[in-house]
Amino acid sequence: MEIPKQNLQRYTNLTREFTKPGYINLNPIQRGGVLTEEARRAILEFGDGYSVCDWCPAKTPRLDMIERPPIKQFLEDMARFLGMDVVRIVTRCREAKFITFLMLARHRGVKDGYVVIDSLAHYSTYLAAELAGLRIKEVPNSGYPEYRVDLDVYAEKIEEVKRETGEYPVAVLLTHVDYQYGNLNDAKKVARIAHDYDVPFVLNAAYTAGLMPINGKELEVDVLVGSGHKSWAASAPTGILAMTEEMAKIILARSKIVGDWSGRSFPQKELALLGCTVMGAPIVSLMASFPHVVERVKRWSEEVEKARYLVEQMERIEGTRQLGVKPKEHTLIHIESEGFFKISQKHKRKGYFLYHELKKKKIVGIQPGMTKHFKLNTYGLSWDEVKYVANAFIEIAEKYGLQVS
Amino acid sequence: MEIPKQNLQRYTNLTREFTKPGYINLNPIQRGGVLTEEARRAILEFGDGYSVCDWCPAKTPRLDMIERPPIKQFLEDMARFLGMDVVRIVTRCREAKFITFLMLARHRGVKDGYVVIDSLAHYSTYLAAELAGLRIKEVPNSGYPEYRVDLDVYAEKIEEVKRETGEYPVAVLLTHVDYQYGNLNDAKKVARIAHDYDVPFVLNAAYTAGLMPINGKELEVDVLVGSGHKSWAASAPTGILAMTEEMAKIILARSKIVGDWSGRSFPQKELALLGCTVMGAPIVSLMASFPHVVERVKRWSEEVEKARYLVEQMERIEGTRQLGVKPKEHTLIHIESEGFFKISQKHKRKGYFLYHELKKKKIVGIQPGMTKHFKLNTYGLSWDEVKYVANAFIEIAEKYGLQVS
Repeated sequence: MEIPKQNLQRYTNLTREFTKPGYINLNPIQRGGVLTEEARRAILEFGDGYSVCDWCPAKTPRLDMIERPPIKQFLEDMARFLGMDVVRIVTRCREAKFITFLMLARHRGVKDGYVVIDSLAHYSTYLAAELAGLRIKEVPNSGYPEYRVDLDVYAEKIEEVKRETGEYPVAVLLTHVDYQYGNLNDAKKVARIAHDYDVPFVLNAAYTAGLMPINGKELEVDVLVGSGHKSWAASAPTGILAMTEEMAKIILARSKIVGDWSGRSFPQKELALLGCTVMGAPIVSLMASFPHVVERVKRWSEEVEKARYLVEQMERIEGTRQLGVKPKEHTLIHIESEGFFKISQKHKRKGYFLYHELKKKKIVGIQPGMTKHFKLNTYGLSWDEVKYVANAFIEIAEKYGLQVS
Repeated sequence: MEIPKQNLQRYTNLTREFTKPGYINLNPIQRGGVLTEEARRAILEFGDGYSVCDWCPAKTPRLDMIERPPIKQFLEDMARFLGMDVVRIVTRCREAKFITFLMLARHRGVKDGYVVIDSLAHYSTYLAAELAGLRIKEVPNSGYPEYRVDLDVYAEKIEEVKRETGEYPVAVLLTHVDYQYGNLNDAKKVARIAHDYDVPFVLNAAYTAGLMPINGKELEVDVLVGSGHKSWAASAPTGILAMTEEMAKIILARSKIVGDWSGRSFPQKELALLGCTVMGAPIVSLMASFPHVVERVKRWSEEVEKARYLVEQMERIEGTRQLGVKPKEHTLIHIESEGFFKISQKHKRKGYFLYHELKKKKIVGIQPGMTKHFKLNTYGLSWDEVKYVANAFIEIAEKYGLQVS
């Protein structure tokens, strides 16, 4: 049907406001997904639909079998990098979780089963379980101000599931670093608990793999899921599904359906992937950034130092503290500020004053309207930028008469 | 773990071979996914991970609610363009099919139910049903040389399902234009059959929506699925899930899960989408190309003319004919050539000779090794290019002594 011309004009010249040089973006989910120059070049080269399918092998027509561009080789390199056996790129980390839960449940023949998860898991972990037809049992956290997940309780929850249903949970999932407080959890500890009960251990490494060194084998992970657009300098949507051989046999089970009239069958296709997944630009951006990512994880400790520095500086501001475990072990920071909140209550712009003050200083990415609680991420900022950000917050505090120690 | 340096070098300077100016690409799945200049600009602008999330609304944090860039508006315009009520962009057409099957089956409380599909459906239709835990029943086609799907048999198959299971199928799916012969099917006819039995009608418009004018309302479609990277001049992965209001209530049902310890719940999130889907470059490429797509569908009849012209010319070659329904009603063409096959049997390069001869003439996209059967797509080629392609095939035929009438 006819679309009014003025509507169509909305789609010409689409631009982002604050990503131009000179701006510092602190958006908690965006720092690890900033493209490298190599990736920027690559997404243009592979922008067209089905661009990676030029050399799809006729005998094994599947994304992971393509060698030009070197997707097959890349998946092998990535598996090695993560210390896992088999890697597939799927459309999102959440899809990797859903697929894992669904296929594990089917394999076990469990209906209405359970997944045990940490209580700081991302919402998509809950939805992945729900869509897979499973229930969840949460491992509590300590609440304000540390929100430390009590990892020992995993055992208790696994047993609770067993008592309730007669079966062990389909999987145990731990969020390696959570989206809310940026707390880093001891993956190996939970892996061992899960394995004591012979339950597969899924590590959600969306905020860690691609940023810090991870060795899945060492952490005794069965399935490691991650996010290319969150932490691998890649375009969305790109999810990482890394498995042990044993898990891959279950999760990447092949299609068995047969056409009742035609006899058509597709025994080469991986069922849960619905065949192929990311057939273009985003997977190529992930590949193009990979050499950079391999290097950058080695500099993780300095990234954490920068985060700690910023926290230290911001805590000089009256009524301002970092929530979550201290000192920081990740660059995602949750700030609580009674000080900025106090100002917001008198300011004509209310909570938006902080956003506007920061914007004047070309700092963006703090959620507009937030003062009492806000999140930011320093990943990939230079020391100069981190210092500039620290000073900016302090200057704003001083401007409005907050004490700075 | 350490990755050898020479491995990492594979990922620098990733390029495509044959997409440079001067080459004509006939790849059957790639013609409709060539980006517009606007889209090329937009994917660079929105290349970074989570680029579209800059202005995610705090109160309704969901991809389809974002107004900067105008995603919300776009989904409304696209719904209007397709004559449907509600549109969501998902990661792939196959995901749209899977979601539809899964949610319809759950809504009906059907386990092990059926989907009735045409026997030329894409493999991903079969896998979508299989992953949703459903079986399929195929509507036969007439076989060689027309492969015409016998649409009247849909009624019979629906009744067969009813007899066998006591229930009507979960859904009826028709592939609007199939991937193999490019045959166009009468969607309205199947819609009416499905509706006679009160079964939802799903139209797989991966090869039609975005290329030719489609009005879902007029065709009485309940769910229309399509592919941005196949037919909307967009980057992969982008799937289109367009629904009536009634279907949207079922397919886009919200999450109901509640954290047993935390009480966390996510009632705004659309369960089957796992929240958000394409959070970056590909959806923006789809939006940027949309004004072009709205215009290009008006020129569909000329695209078909060009396809018919090429068929006419190619059929001048000894032993060469178009398979599928005649005359062409789509630009995807399946050629059978006993002539080229005859040459391949004597040629030292075997079946690859045709690929190499075409490549010498800067024509690519025909699957290497194929001569007896190959597919090509003329969509979006200029008349000059189509004539050049026709002449190229004729010249190759003459070079090897085939008769040309």
